[in-house]
Amino acid sequence: MSSSHPIFLPKGFQFSAVAAGIKVSHKPDLALISAGPGTTAAALFTKNRIVAAPVEVGRKALATNGGLVRAVLVNSGNANCATGADGIRTCKRVCAETARFLKIRQSEVFPSSTGIIGVPFPAAKVNSRLPALVETAGSSAGHLRQFAEAILTTDRVVKLASVPLQSGAASITGVAKGAGMIHPQLATMLVYLLTDVKASATELKSALNEACDDSFNTISIDGDTSTNDTVLLLASGGSGVELRRIRKEFRSALSVVCRSLAEQIVADGEGVQHVIRLRIEQAKSRRQALEVARTIAHSPLVKTAWAGADPNWGRILAAVGRSGISLSPQKISITIGSQLVCRGSVACVFDHERAHEELSQPECQVMVRLGNGRVALDFLTADLTAEYVAINADYST
Amino acid sequence: MSSSHPIFLPKGFQFSAVAAGIKVSHKPDLALISAGPGTTAAALFTKNRIVAAPVEVGRKALATNGGLVRAVLVNSGNANCATGADGIRTCKRVCAETARFLKIRQSEVFPSSTGIIGVPFPAAKVNSRLPALVETAGSSAGHLRQFAEAILTTDRVVKLASVPLQSGAASITGVAKGAGMIHPQLATMLVYLLTDVKASATELKSALNEACDDSFNTISIDGDTSTNDTVLLLASGGSGVELRRIRKEFRSALSVVCRSLAEQIVADGEGVQHVIRLRIEQAKSRRQALEVARTIAHSPLVKTAWAGADPNWGRILAAVGRSGISLSPQKISITIGSQLVCRGSVACVFDHERAHEELSQPECQVMVRLGNGRVALDFLTADLTAEYVAINADYST
Repeated sequence: MSSSHPIFLPKGFQFSAVAAGIKVSHKPDLALISAGPGTTAAALFTKNRIVAAPVEVGRKALATNGGLVRAVLVNSGNANCATGADGIRTCKRVCAETARFLKIRQSEVFPSSTGIIGVPFPAAKVNSRLPALVETAGSSAGHLRQFAEAILTTDRVVKLASVPLQSGAASITGVAKGAGMIHPQLATMLVYLLTDVKASATELKSALNEACDDSFNTISIDGDTSTNDTVLLLASGGSGVELRRIRKEFRSALSVVCRSLAEQIVADGEGVQHVIRLRIEQAKSRRQALEVARTIAHSPLVKTAWAGADPNWGRILAAVGRSGISLSPQKISITIGSQLVCRGSVACVFDHERAHEELSQPECQVMVRLGNGRVALDFLTADLTAEYVAINADYST
Repeated sequence: MSSSHPIFLPKGFQFSAVAAGIKVSHKPDLALISAGPGTTAAALFTKNRIVAAPVEVGRKALATNGGLVRAVLVNSGNANCATGADGIRTCKRVCAETARFLKIRQSEVFPSSTGIIGVPFPAAKVNSRLPALVETAGSSAGHLRQFAEAILTTDRVVKLASVPLQSGAASITGVAKGAGMIHPQLATMLVYLLTDVKASATELKSALNEACDDSFNTISIDGDTSTNDTVLLLASGGSGVELRRIRKEFRSALSVVCRSLAEQIVADGEGVQHVIRLRIEQAKSRRQALEVARTIAHSPLVKTAWAGADPNWGRILAAVGRSGISLSPQKISITIGSQLVCRGSVACVFDHERAHEELSQPECQVMVRLGNGRVALDFLTADLTAEYVAINADYST
């Protein structure tokens, strides 16, 4: 599934976007989702201990109102992070103004920001464009696409995924940005998942946790975690379909949407030439599999080898060895594409040219078997290219 | 101190090096330190759970003979790692052969290897050159330099450091290679520290642990840990000076030698343009300071900003935030060179041009104050450049 696939629009949501002059490019940089009364919400936020003002404000609002959201106000071009008490104040000010225009409560406005950090948040610019933002809102696929475009930063393409529920009676649609970095600042991943099923905030939270574990929590481009990362799930109830009656279908559909967005994010990562589907097998636990996957996915030596499509399994084996898990070298095997390259931590005879060719494709699977247990994990990552360095080393001031 | 500084040769050691055809370049790749009877030894090895054959063999020999070494046999060009039972066998075979030529016990031969991994160890090549290696050994600075050159791989310069003890009555001299990567395989750091004081293996072990904590354990180029890393300290007793009588002077001198070698290693790291002296202050514990330092030093976003001499403190702050320590954002400040760039996690007004200029120097200090306690730590690291990617992405087969 990709953004070119059909979009099923969940009932009960409107979208709009305007240019507020936050981005120097003067491209659209302020976007709104508005939702009908009774819309429930659940969210997951960055685990970084330094968090941006909108993360702090949004998290608190959801906690105090029990998971109600009527509007999502997103800006790109400024992260409103490392902006201190002023950042919180200005974030609340634009939420209050949005609430006034939409005639809803301030705590029902969920704010998100992505962009440069440490720069005062331009609340006046945002407020001056709120009337236009509210007036132009609409529920078409075109409106959704405008929203998806306005939240982008260094992303090259919009990221959308959509799945029908109950033969089209309801649907889940997700829109995301990331994890390209705001030049020259931080990577941020923002994900909005919209559905028109009827669900309590608690039901949403549990479904969201599960779906994120197998998607956004198992991807990595560079191992850096933004101060602004947010995944928000909204349920308008507009279809009349109750989540508790289609729990299994809903969870599976939400998982598909999240995994599709996660894949789109990795494929659009800065400087990414090769997406690597890392598969860890025979781990003792999910935690152990995750530790191995993350150590491999964060190793500059492994990632630069992938950039050169080099089937250099020694670097992968060394990363497994320093991942901190207990292991038996004689049980470890590594497969690159179709080639078993190492068995029992010893070189296999394999077709180097073939492995090189498979690693040269836009996507390739690398599998590590640990011989420790029965848990398997799929983890999506990418190579580390000279282009990544060029994008992020460029001095901007 | 650098390798151009005077070398104080500890008594009781001889050095030699020959070309054994292990490196494709046909440069010297086999080197020997031989030491007099009664030479004691202590060693530290890689924490990677995948270890090369010589690490396994050397570790076991030291443990069984109580810390006695009469010869150090080092080869570059082949790491003898991921070579299975054959690797162990061939490693033991060259140790046995060396022992035979030197008329010492096999367990007194300490083996080291650095180079490509997963390729069978060429024991026959090594054995055929052992006679020449033993015959040409000598104790001059020139002989030491030959040894220092033969153990290099992608290093650009030899790494030597030397400090006199007791006004020249004794000395400590260290020689190192690393942490450039064996093209196209692993980084390996090998360090040999030689002294002619008289000391038990236990005294050496305790001094070595202390010296490594403030040198090799607080540097990082890319966060990858080799399967072959080894630090070996030998004491010949040739000066007659007893370590226990000059404990303080010895520890301080050993620290100076180790820190100098650590700095030479970082400065010679692959593709390194800027060495960063990371200073963490006001940590609660050394462990906490190390966690923060390592997270910063391993962040591709931070390291690429340094490559561009970009005083991008937001990325540093975000790395602190995801380091896993508990922290109070309002207590954190960051200084780049002479410029306080962030106080209480909020931007300061600072001279961007000046900070950029200071980061453009071969060396610059970056200081993070945590406001958590009173522990300070100095950590040496470097930028991540396009040259690093080019060196390590190059496909070799």
